[in-house]
Amino acid sequence: MAEKSGIVFIGSKPPMNYVLAIITSLSASNAKDITLKARGRAITTAVDVAEITRNRFIKDLKVSNISIGTEEMPAREGENRSRMVSTMEIKLTKE
Amino acid sequence: MAEKSGIVFIGSKPPMNYVLAIITSLSASNAKDITLKARGRAITTAVDVAEITRNRFIKDLKVSNISIGTEEMPAREGENRSRMVSTMEIKLTKE
Repeated sequence: MAEKSGIVFIGSKPPMNYVLAIITSLSASNAKDITLKARGRAITTAVDVAEITRNRFIKDLKVSNISIGTEEMPAREGENRSRMVSTMEIKLTKE
Repeated sequence: MAEKSGIVFIGSKPPMNYVLAIITSLSASNAKDITLKARGRAITTAVDVAEITRNRFIKDLKVSNISIGTEEMPAREGENRSRMVSTMEIKLTKE
């Protein structure tokens, strides 16, 4: 759950962990926006986190941008090909 | 893999099945765009499908819009609460 200048990296923890990180980050810094970044299976979690945060906790938070992409990951041990993995960024902005 | 007026519903099949559906749909109908719809775990697959289609097969296909949302699903048998599930739509447009 690394946090840096309004970015929350979504991994394999339960969604509520990241929701809390977003709420904390937004209230601590007076920042107006925050970006969720996720790769592979965590993409679903990122969408869940964005939806839970804006439906249940910060009602004036809007999805201002979503982008998708592809990243090349180094080959795992015992494999000889690098793998392509999908990525997603969701930017949330406070009105 | 139901298909209707430029919409492909992404489920739990391998990504290439949906990639093929998109390619077929775009070439058969002369349509300029197609929308992928996914719920829950299939969201990750939808992003994979969009990325594979535009990186490997149809190079002039652009992501023209992405939206996320929440849907209420009826309670499963033996449960007494409905569940919330995240949804995503990715619109791809041929230039």
